[in-house]
Amino acid sequence: MAKLKWGMIGGGQGSQIGPAHRLGALADGLFEMTAGALDVDPERGRAFAMSLGVAEDRAYANWQEMLEGERKRDDRVDLVTVATPNNTHFEITKAFLEAGFHVLCEKPMTMTVEEGEEIVRTARASGKVCAVNYCYSAYPMVRQMKAMVAAGEIGRVRSIVANFSHGHHAAGDDAENPRVRWRYDPAQAGISGQMADCGIHALHLATFITGDEIEKLSADFASTVEGRQLEDDAMVNFRMSGGTVGRLWSSSIALGRQHGLDIQIFGETGGFRWASEQPNQVYYHKLGGRVEIMEKGEAGLGEDAQRLSRVAIAHPEGFPLAVANIYVDLAARIAGKDEGNLPTAEDGLRSMASVYAAVASARDGSAWVDARPPMFR
Amino acid sequence: MAKLKWGMIGGGQGSQIGPAHRLGALADGLFEMTAGALDVDPERGRAFAMSLGVAEDRAYANWQEMLEGERKRDDRVDLVTVATPNNTHFEITKAFLEAGFHVLCEKPMTMTVEEGEEIVRTARASGKVCAVNYCYSAYPMVRQMKAMVAAGEIGRVRSIVANFSHGHHAAGDDAENPRVRWRYDPAQAGISGQMADCGIHALHLATFITGDEIEKLSADFASTVEGRQLEDDAMVNFRMSGGTVGRLWSSSIALGRQHGLDIQIFGETGGFRWASEQPNQVYYHKLGGRVEIMEKGEAGLGEDAQRLSRVAIAHPEGFPLAVANIYVDLAARIAGKDEGNLPTAEDGLRSMASVYAAVASARDGSAWVDARPPMFR
Amino acid sequence: MAKLKWGMIGGGQGSQIGPAHRLGALADGLFEMTAGALDVDPERGRAFAMSLGVAEDRAYANWQEMLEGERKRDDRVDLVTVATPNNTHFEITKAFLEAGFHVLCEKPMTMTVEEGEEIVRTARASGKVCAVNYCYSAYPMVRQMKAMVAAGEIGRVRSIVANFSHGHHAAGDDAENPRVRWRYDPAQAGISGQMADCGIHALHLATFITGDEIEKLSADFASTVEGRQLEDDAMVNFRMSGGTVGRLWSSSIALGRQHGLDIQIFGETGGFRWASEQPNQVYYHKLGGRVEIMEKGEAGLGEDAQRLSRVAIAHPEGFPLAVANIYVDLAARIAGKDEGNLPTAEDGLRSMASVYAAVASARDGSAWVDARPPMFR
Amino acid sequence: MAKLKWGMIGGGQGSQIGPAHRLGALADGLFEMTAGALDVDPERGRAFAMSLGVAEDRAYANWQEMLEGERKRDDRVDLVTVATPNNTHFEITKAFLEAGFHVLCEKPMTMTVEEGEEIVRTARASGKVCAVNYCYSAYPMVRQMKAMVAAGEIGRVRSIVANFSHGHHAAGDDAENPRVRWRYDPAQAGISGQMADCGIHALHLATFITGDEIEKLSADFASTVEGRQLEDDAMVNFRMSGGTVGRLWSSSIALGRQHGLDIQIFGETGGFRWASEQPNQVYYHKLGGRVEIMEKGEAGLGEDAQRLSRVAIAHPEGFPLAVANIYVDLAARIAGKDEGNLPTAEDGLRSMASVYAAVASARDGSAWVDARPPMFR
Repeated sequence: MAKLKWGMIGGGQGSQIGPAHRLGALADGLFEMTAGALDVDPERGRAFAMSLGVAEDRAYANWQEMLEGERKRDDRVDLVTVATPNNTHFEITKAFLEAGFHVLCEKPMTMTVEEGEEIVRTARASGKVCAVNYCYSAYPMVRQMKAMVAAGEIGRVRSIVANFSHGHHAAGDDAENPRVRWRYDPAQAGISGQMADCGIHALHLATFITGDEIEKLSADFASTVEGRQLEDDAMVNFRMSGGTVGRLWSSSIALGRQHGLDIQIFGETGGFRWASEQPNQVYYHKLGGRVEIMEKGEAGLGEDAQRLSRVAIAHPEGFPLAVANIYVDLAARIAGKDEGNLPTAEDGLRSMASVYAAVASARDGSAWVDARPPMFR
Repeated sequence: MAKLKWGMIGGGQGSQIGPAHRLGALADGLFEMTAGALDVDPERGRAFAMSLGVAEDRAYANWQEMLEGERKRDDRVDLVTVATPNNTHFEITKAFLEAGFHVLCEKPMTMTVEEGEEIVRTARASGKVCAVNYCYSAYPMVRQMKAMVAAGEIGRVRSIVANFSHGHHAAGDDAENPRVRWRYDPAQAGISGQMADCGIHALHLATFITGDEIEKLSADFASTVEGRQLEDDAMVNFRMSGGTVGRLWSSSIALGRQHGLDIQIFGETGGFRWASEQPNQVYYHKLGGRVEIMEKGEAGLGEDAQRLSRVAIAHPEGFPLAVANIYVDLAARIAGKDEGNLPTAEDGLRSMASVYAAVASARDGSAWVDARPPMFR
Repeated sequence: MAKLKWGMIGGGQGSQIGPAHRLGALADGLFEMTAGALDVDPERGRAFAMSLGVAEDRAYANWQEMLEGERKRDDRVDLVTVATPNNTHFEITKAFLEAGFHVLCEKPMTMTVEEGEEIVRTARASGKVCAVNYCYSAYPMVRQMKAMVAAGEIGRVRSIVANFSHGHHAAGDDAENPRVRWRYDPAQAGISGQMADCGIHALHLATFITGDEIEKLSADFASTVEGRQLEDDAMVNFRMSGGTVGRLWSSSIALGRQHGLDIQIFGETGGFRWASEQPNQVYYHKLGGRVEIMEKGEAGLGEDAQRLSRVAIAHPEGFPLAVANIYVDLAARIAGKDEGNLPTAEDGLRSMASVYAAVASARDGSAWVDARPPMFR
Repeated sequence: MAKLKWGMIGGGQGSQIGPAHRLGALADGLFEMTAGALDVDPERGRAFAMSLGVAEDRAYANWQEMLEGERKRDDRVDLVTVATPNNTHFEITKAFLEAGFHVLCEKPMTMTVEEGEEIVRTARASGKVCAVNYCYSAYPMVRQMKAMVAAGEIGRVRSIVANFSHGHHAAGDDAENPRVRWRYDPAQAGISGQMADCGIHALHLATFITGDEIEKLSADFASTVEGRQLEDDAMVNFRMSGGTVGRLWSSSIALGRQHGLDIQIFGETGGFRWASEQPNQVYYHKLGGRVEIMEKGEAGLGEDAQRLSRVAIAHPEGFPLAVANIYVDLAARIAGKDEGNLPTAEDGLRSMASVYAAVASARDGSAWVDARPPMFR
């Protein structure tokens, strides 16, 4: 089986997400790194790409050169990953889709809802795969919860309670810390700070696990650190198309939480609790029984949970392999197989529409607003 | 040291809270059970009181008889605990205060804000102690968090995130289950279900630990089980007098949670996490350091945490001893000592005003409303 | 129901175990504190007793006076608790049994096996209750494990693995710290340090839960802190009468463990894990199923677990109430009821014989030795 | 940077350890899979190798063919991984070393101590790297503990307590279950069951973290399931060259434990606790402080812990990446860099000598025996 050819844009040296993509693409031997435009500094980017085994003529200075270079090759890359700064996702993703490449875009897919709708239209027109790296949805035990919900094992989902909170922006030294500062600067981050950065993952998970969309919401935002223009602590209440009540708290000033993406799902006949820091277990309570610890790799899990787990029960698998699972599903989709659980441009659009709705609600005294993108209303 | 004389109203056989009060009053040898009107069935109540060592002439048929009987005795009880159904708290508490007894009232102290204000006025006029059994505030490690906040050890409190959620009303068999049904019946429970039952404790904790009051709030209520007229799942966002952002989720359909009263407090330079199911530890994160496990009984804790802990570090103390701590503080107050941390009628009023505000907000599309009782505005 | 009259010897101010006994005796209203010889300093002891409500004529200067004083009263105390230094347990317990009092003795019941056998004989001859405060056996969830083992729910018990390890003697400053120093001084502590202090509880639990006795054992002792004559870290392997393999590790230099009494029981069809720091849960794995969290207070527990739990599920109960459960069972036994689960002189003897055997084995290169007291061989 | 060429022997379809090696070798892009003899069934093995991208002429029918084929190539593989049944490790490893290949051998490296010494001699003579896949030693937080011990941060190590226990062989249906049965059959498994399979990892960790060797030990073995000829539950007490006391429990009938490799290290001034199921945290107790949660990826960790971690704090990394870390260190060693922490043939020999010593001690009434391989005495 020949490996698929893969190119990456962004994710250069020192990038936080770059290593996760390289591990994700390479781990299962499905892709080989063939091309790259890895850095805003052309020479540094080319050198780094070559150090990773990319041939000199495919170590590009920037994404435009890569688009031109790859477009005309017979052995063009099969998949392009876009891991650049957020405000460039839209144009790069759009350009590569139009040129007939499959694309995996980092979140948030776009800066606005309008751009999101444009990507959805472009992807549909292109016939190419456009995926968004909502990688938490690819943990085996998240897939397991989704499968059990779909099978009716916990009945109708009454409520879903999610958190994505950490304390890494609590120091409040934004002035001296550019890696933090830009997140709360509308000129760079857009309309939202913490929700667009972290909360958006939890919004996606809510829709992913239930299979429903977020219809309306009410939000409360706070900028708890003086001088921040965008929210660093947010609460969103929502209602989903299936009637589920949703509650999502996201904060970046929550000292004591390291990477607190947790989700609880409460159905008529069962409940789940899952935390991304310990992703291999789900605490499952079946009405009338005891809380049980469901383990990745245990006998009897659903097809997706089994397929996306690599090693035996209680041998932990972590974040890089969740990203790898996105690449596994991408390879399947590129090969024409029906991998319906891959997060797509539609998911990227829906969650961005929810972030915009949350901003609007927070500005309007927590009024309830429509959370759906216009094109899906 | 002579023991104080104690009488209880309600808390008869089969009551859930009665045993906690008896343990609480007796455990430290500060009170003896001297009188009681324990049951709505006079004979059953008298028999039960006598089985607990109450003399026959002080085993009363009902609270009115107890009021009359004790009022005229020279050796009248020092303290009366009111543990009757919620809608009787007001008149019993008021009557005993007016007759010059110290009173400990179960939560919620009253059914309405107006009644709450009346109790505050009555208590003030009487010069007697009127306490409310917000017993979670009496856990040593809750007192420790309060002391550290007061000492500025975590800086200004930016946000407080509390949960009080369980799954014990998830079965949805209200029609056959009177112990659940009444909680969602406005005729018996008043204007609120889960918030008045559980969420109210967390509202109190937020004010207790920060020392601030809740000024305004926005709420979202849901009745997730068909047929319920009152909320079984609620979210309240609030702002406190010191600027703290608050978030409180309370649910009774959260399958997998047993008694999920948790609280997280995030300050400028430190954060706390505490859970009532494991009450002897606080997870403490000091900015720049690691998360530390602070233990009840460890060296160097504050005066209150030490005073209210009975056995050595890592010898767990639980719920009944938290209630006992309320009685310890009551004994101090009755003896004229300044026990400022005892929850009082003012606290009972404030938290009920917050519940009313939450109901009003939830009915008005999550609009922000004043959460303070009129008398404190 | 009249309260039983209770007297305590030892447990004066500053004592670690004294408060637990007072809480234990008083909490449920079954006993009243009637007499006491609480301190090696007669005046301090008398004053402290009176401060606890003991009448002046029953606040004794020492145990001998208390024996004389109580022996001749018509309203003599029903139960005497012996909470004095270990090397006095034997003579006090023996004297009170011979005088016809029921006795609860702190562990270790005696300093030698011979003394233990003498206590067993004395107790049998007296017809009085002689209990030993192996209070961990009185936690509801420990009783639950015992009941499930007895009912065959986990099949034959293949192995039992226990720890009782903490780090409170790790500082190694014995010379300046008399509370630590005496434990490693044979003149005061006898033949064993950590095993006689802590490990002995775990030895008892192994016999308690399985219902079997320890037949033989092999031990390895270490004195890891320079200058200690007795062990501060011990491992004991044993075999029980029912064929169960046992492993017990006990240490006082285990930095990071606060009060690490844990026990795991592995049967043919199920396994348990319980930890005294979180005593209200048992992790239960039924062969072929998932690990389940069994909760104190949940529906369907055995009679003992229900009877000895006071408040609802997930309302934690802790160490003082485990001690209280010993007093509950004592009250039942004194009243002539069959409370077979109360730890008795036979248990005190058996566990002391095991400690002696462990010392002998450790001195003899971990050779396997008979662990039974001679009178039970 | 050209990738190193890698070949694998064993680890065919359905193998438990095969996927971990492929992930480990590929994840970081350091190796490419170039050759393989993956299965005892030649055709199945060749087809599987080709499906993984191995060229047809390097998809070998068996290891002998692979040795012949690779030996004569100019572009021969750089590294051979031996993941075949245990009783073939010796001859394959020896043959490839002698032919001048670097080898990574699965544990146990050999079936006997004599074979182990032979491998050590062969490896030394060859000048090639011979590593053993003690992959738990490559978790970042295990390296962190080692670094802190070496830096004296916890003082002299007084004791080390390790477990490697699970319940996956508790069913006792060996007759019908060949994957379990062979482990307790001396003809296939050699002299030890659970110790050679699991306990051996913990033995290695003890030496790895302390940097000392195990000098002598006393063991107790049990076959708790009827019919088993080899131990399924073992306890080993040991002494290390630096004076550290060791205790190791390993069981395969521990129902409720999934993959219970835990280690606790107790020094004069600090203690560690680490569990392989949650490998990204170490609970660290500094004498006089509180227990702290040390996190993979936090600021200030040692060089090795940082180097071997790929994603940010609290983004979990799991078992496959621990194996990948072995390959990272192999690549460094093959490139001539000094990667001293890679487990080597000497480690494989030492731990096998300890297993043999444990067997001997268990047969001899837990007598203390020398645990060192003869060549290192």
